[in-house]
Order: sequence, then C-alpha cells, then structure tokens
Amino acid sequence: MRLDGVFMNWEEKYAKRARGMRASAIRELLKLTQQPDIISFGGGLPSPDAFPVEIIKKVTLEVLTREPEKALQYGTTEGDPNLRRFIAERVARFGIKTEPDNVLITSGSQQGLDLIGKVLIDEGDIVMIEAPSYIGGLQAFRAYMPKFEAVPMDDDGMKMDSLEEKLKTLDTCPKFIYTVPTFQNPAGVTMSVERRKKLVEISNRYQVPVLEDDPYSELRYSGETLPAIKSFDTEENVIYMGTFSKIFAPGMRLAWIIGDTAFMRKCVIAKQGTDLCTNPFTQKLAYEYCSKYLDEHIKRIKDLYAAKRIIMLEAFDQYMPPGVKWTRPEGGMFLWVTLPEGLNATELLPRAVEKKVAYVGGEGFYDGGGERNMRINFSYSSHEQIREGVRILAEVIKEAMAKR
Amino acid sequence: MRLDGVFMNWEEKYAKRARGMRASAIRELLKLTQQPDIISFGGGLPSPDAFPVEIIKKVTLEVLTREPEKALQYGTTEGDPNLRRFIAERVARFGIKTEPDNVLITSGSQQGLDLIGKVLIDEGDIVMIEAPSYIGGLQAFRAYMPKFEAVPMDDDGMKMDSLEEKLKTLDTCPKFIYTVPTFQNPAGVTMSVERRKKLVEISNRYQVPVLEDDPYSELRYSGETLPAIKSFDTEENVIYMGTFSKIFAPGMRLAWIIGDTAFMRKCVIAKQGTDLCTNPFTQKLAYEYCSKYLDEHIKRIKDLYAAKRIIMLEAFDQYMPPGVKWTRPEGGMFLWVTLPEGLNATELLPRAVEKKVAYVGGEGFYDGGGERNMRINFSYSSHEQIREGVRILAEVIKEAMAKR
Repeated sequence: MRLDGVFMNWEEKYAKRARGMRASAIRELLKLTQQPDIISFGGGLPSPDAFPVEIIKKVTLEVLTREPEKALQYGTTEGDPNLRRFIAERVARFGIKTEPDNVLITSGSQQGLDLIGKVLIDEGDIVMIEAPSYIGGLQAFRAYMPKFEAVPMDDDGMKMDSLEEKLKTLDTCPKFIYTVPTFQNPAGVTMSVERRKKLVEISNRYQVPVLEDDPYSELRYSGETLPAIKSFDTEENVIYMGTFSKIFAPGMRLAWIIGDTAFMRKCVIAKQGTDLCTNPFTQKLAYEYCSKYLDEHIKRIKDLYAAKRIIMLEAFDQYMPPGVKWTRPEGGMFLWVTLPEGLNATELLPRAVEKKVAYVGGEGFYDGGGERNMRINFSYSSHEQIREGVRILAEVIKEAMAKR
Repeated sequence: MRLDGVFMNWEEKYAKRARGMRASAIRELLKLTQQPDIISFGGGLPSPDAFPVEIIKKVTLEVLTREPEKALQYGTTEGDPNLRRFIAERVARFGIKTEPDNVLITSGSQQGLDLIGKVLIDEGDIVMIEAPSYIGGLQAFRAYMPKFEAVPMDDDGMKMDSLEEKLKTLDTCPKFIYTVPTFQNPAGVTMSVERRKKLVEISNRYQVPVLEDDPYSELRYSGETLPAIKSFDTEENVIYMGTFSKIFAPGMRLAWIIGDTAFMRKCVIAKQGTDLCTNPFTQKLAYEYCSKYLDEHIKRIKDLYAAKRIIMLEAFDQYMPPGVKWTRPEGGMFLWVTLPEGLNATELLPRAVEKKVAYVGGEGFYDGGGERNMRINFSYSSHEQIREGVRILAEVIKEAMAKR
C-alpha cells in the first residue's frame, strides 16, 4: 500500500454516510438572518424578548455560589438528578407517568434525534415519517441511511388509515414512526386525541416504536391541552422528547428523552461516546429557573407569541392574494403556507431575500414534494416587522403569479 | 407484516452498532467518585480548586448585560466567531498556522472524536491507534465499527518504525492515525520532535490523515514546550483537537477541531445533524474569560498541579513495593503504573474501592492487553488524599503480591 506523491483526496476518505451529507436549509438560513436588515420568518427562533435575562443572571449567581464544584465539573451522562426529577413530574400535565430514571437530558432535541437514530437505524431500515416532517429530524436520521416512508396528514394530523395501509404492505418492520403531533413543525397541525389512541394501538399491534417529538405543547394559545401520545402508552413503546429551547432559551442547549428502561440505558451509552455529558452548568441553571420561575415565565411568552400570531394572521388576511392558503394553528411558532399551483416557494426565495424577507421553502420538510409550501415563523420578529414582512411577501407572490 | 400479541423486543430493534455498545469504565467510575468518602485517582477531573468561579460570575454578568439576545439564542454550527479567532491565534504557540474558518467549536473533545468518526469511518475501516490509547477515543470510534490496528509506544511516544511496518503490510489504507502525542492519556509519554516530523512524513507518503488529540499541552510543569505535529503539516493532512476542559472548566463543554477546509466543512454539516450548535452561552463566557484572564489562570492551575504531581511521585517513591513501575510525566494529569507480573489491575479494583480508593484499570485503553496497568490521576485529589490514597493502594498491591 503506497500512494507516493499523490495529494490527499479527502473525498475518498469520507464514510459512506458523510458523502451525501448536505447543509440544512435552516442552518444556512440562520446565517442570512444574522444580517440585521432582514425580516426573518425562517428558523424557529424564539423572540429575544422572551429570554428571562434578569432571572438567568440571578440563578447563575445562586448556582455558582452554592455549588460551583459541581456546576463546572464533568457530570453524569444521564443528566442532573434534580432536573430529571423535575421533568418526570412536569410531563404529568400531558398525562405521562414516568420516573426520573427514564429521563435522559440531551444537548438539545437535535442530539436526542441523533442518539435515537444512532441506537436504532441500520442502513436500509425503514423509518415512517409525516409528510411534511420536521427538517432537523430528517437530517439527523439521514446520517444513519434509512429509507423513509412518508404518511400523509390532514387537519387532524397523521392519517392512521394510511399508516396502517403502509404497514400492511411492508416486508420488514419499520424501526420507528416519527411524529410531531402537537402544532407540528412545519404544518402547524395537531393530531386528534382519537388518532393518538389509535397510533398507540397500531404501535402495539405491529410492534413499531413511536417517536413523539413534542417541543411546542407548552406553547398553546387557545383550545384545550391534549394528552401526549405517550399518555396512552401501556407497553413502553412510545419514546417522548421535549425541550427547554422554547420555554427557557435555545442557547442553554437542553432537552430530554423519556422512554423504556432498557432503551434509555442504550441511549445513555450511546451518549457517553458522543459527548460524555450534557452541559452540567446550564442544567443547574435550568433547574434553578424551573423550580422557581417557569410557570410565570411561560405565561409571559405565551402572551407575547399569542399576540404575534394574531398580528401575523391579520396581515395574511389583509395582504395575501386569493389562491394562497395558510394554517391557523392554536399554538407553536409557525404558519404553513400553500402557494397557488404553478408557483415554487424555493424559487421565490432569492427574490424575497432581495426584498429583505426570509422564510423556509417546503421541500426540505419532505422526502420529495413540498414545492408550493413555505414555513413562516411568527415568534421571532416584532409586530412591525411581521406586518411589513407579510406585505412584502405578498408582493413577491403576486409578482410571481402575474408571470405564470 | 404482523406480530400481534408479542411484547416489544427492544434488543432486536437496535442498530448493529448499538448492540455491542458497553458503558465506558471511566463513566461508571465517575459515579463511584461521587461518593464523598472515596479518594478518586480515576477520571481525568480537574481540581475543583482550579475553577475560576469568581471570574465566571463576572464574565456571565458582562455577557448577559452586553449581548443576551445572542448568548441565549441558537448559534451558528461553526461556533462563535470571536472564539474561533482566539483559538486560531492561540495555537500559534504550538507552531500551528491556521485561520478562524478552519476552526470548529465542539461540545467537548468527545464530540470532536465522534464527529471525526462519523465523517470518516465505515464499518471495517482500519483506524491506527496507540497501545495504550485514550479510552474515550476508542469508545467514540467503536460506534462506527472500525478495525483497530495498535502501534506500540516507548518513552518517545508512538514507534514510527512499527507504524511504517504495519502500513506496509496493510491491504487497504487506514482512515486515520489517532495519537495523543503530548502527556499521553493514559501513558503520560510525550512524542519526540523527531518522531512528530517523521509522522507527518509518513502521513504524506501513505496519504493517511493524522488525528492529533492535544488536551494537555498547556499543562506542562517542566521542560520545553514542543511544536505540535500539525506545525510540521504542509499538506493539511493533520487534524488537530484541543479543549477548554482542562484550562477553563469541563462543565462548559467546549473544545475545538482544526483541519483541512473541505474536511472541516464536512464536519460542520455532520455537526448540524448531531446537535445544531455548541452552547452559544458558554462560548461567549469562554471568549470573555480567555481574552482577559486565561494566561493568569493557567499559571495558577499549573502551580496547583505541579505541586500535586510532586506529592504523588513522592508518595509512590515512599510506599510502593519493589517491582511496581510508574511514569514521571512532565505534564498532564496522570501517572501510568505497571504492576509486577501475575497481578491484574482490574481484579484489584474492588478491593481498592472497598478500602476507598479508585483508579482506572489499563484494559479499557487497549484493544486487548493492559491487565497489569493502572491509570492514576493526580489533578483532582487534595495533597492529603494523594498521600493517603497512594499508601492504601500500595497496601492493596502488597497484599496481592503476597498471595501470588
């Protein structure tokens, strides 16, 4: 084995999984949105007004005075015991019964998605997804080279008859069914209680785990809180994920997975090799914050986002030309827009950015399809920016419609 | 496909890579060391006295007053621009010439090792390692199922003639050569300058990338600073890793990778899917700390550890029976102990823990071998604990020698 005098060819060094890796549209957009004069409806960024800055100053001083030697040292892979206990108790409001031992703290939900992929997916395995599905989930799973099978949705979420139809025709059992059932990212849709029950029934019957990714349940602006899919899970077949990014701050990089004891043990071992432990410092801050300030702060951000949602829906009603459709979600952070036939949201983006408005085109959320869709975030921008941004976006769409 | 009435068998759901995953000895030990009455020579924990607690309070208030909206928001995957620039400049002291664009901030070195494995290793690929090698590296790489080829070391580090010998006999080109050249973990050995040059020459000739993992270079207590392997790298074939865990605080979970532009781009994309971004909050704290306090603080921890190293070496000289051998490293955090023939360090551990002393047995650092070795950390315990712990450890060893 000698290759004397040849320059290193990195391309041929890459593992198969890495060769096809592409940058996510969302991440690339984040760079755009750092330009100060852009009105960004892209990303899923909380409003900077929503960050509890003064509280964080206070809890930092408390933690660094009380237990610096723990906050600044390596921590256990499983996570801070107090924070795990807090989460196990907190999710009871969504009907979930669990123990602190079944909770793993992760470095954001994205790491949760990666770990679950790492533990479950072999090349060629089937993963059932929603159409459309969360772009970050697709990206995390793709690293382990599954085959996606997409299940259509309607206003009540993933269609259970279509899911069962698909399962019956498959030769091999899918590794899991991935769903964001509440205020879905990107479609804004919420799965009905009836379908949640049905999904658990299907999971049990076909022995397919369900991955319930739930970043938004705490951000409901109207209607009744729904029980989690996991609340109907009697056989530990549902893996549940939640995050502090929307109710505390994304910069803390904190989220959690709850699941079957043996499965969680495997996730812990996978996490050891992946990053040893989640940030113990920000975990301590999160616990201090949660145990004293969480409910009051969530009330504040819900008021903030509920108002922005109304402003955005009003602006859509006022400016959008006939033929454009959008959702009216009861919570979360996004509208899902469908353009008239013949228009392509990704092709429109450069023109929109030129006019200083950014959004995410629908294609990234599909494993094929979504050309006519836009995901529009309403949590990040100010009221004025929302009105102005929607006005500009409507102009760009009208311009394109005129050219059809 | 129907499996009606059968309980979920998680074992059969796991991906092939996950089936063999075992908990790392180090992580399990960390749990032990959380018992307050244990003297722990296990782990690679900095001393709690080494944490700049008051400085961290100060920089936290500064950052949260000046730029809370950036510190608490999602960040770019590449990392904080100021911190990347700082690192690019800092590594010049080890002879490395690089640009901020070639620096990727990771969630600790463990994530760096995982990302490099993810980007480079396909099942069955060869990875060259040192014998012994860093346990966390082996664990990270194993998730991607390589074959390890171990190269022996002597007092000057990895033996270059053995490395070249191995390379000549291999049918396929290894994906990379993994080395901790300075104050090696666990063996404490430092690679000579001559071998560093030779390694780059071999890397170029055989077109095998080198992964230089360098957590300890800043912690030199005697002797001259050596140039990094990467300082001799003219073809961008060396990937260099460093960390803030030993010079700031492990709880911040911050480290970095420096490498070839195309390769780093691939690592960034892999990181997007793995955890979106490294904690932007602790990155801002690290930059604020580094730009104002780093050198003064490193001086303080070097004094602290240099003293502990002397106390430990004195205790070994005083207590250990003839036949036990240990290294006298010029830096880092570990002694590497070799027991007399017929003794097994892993088998001795339960007895040592019973007597309230913990260490790591050598086997975890080898892909086969190391039974007679112990890794002994001297940075974490107090002077008194070091003397007492070594005394007890010597007793346990004498007891076992008497029973041979």
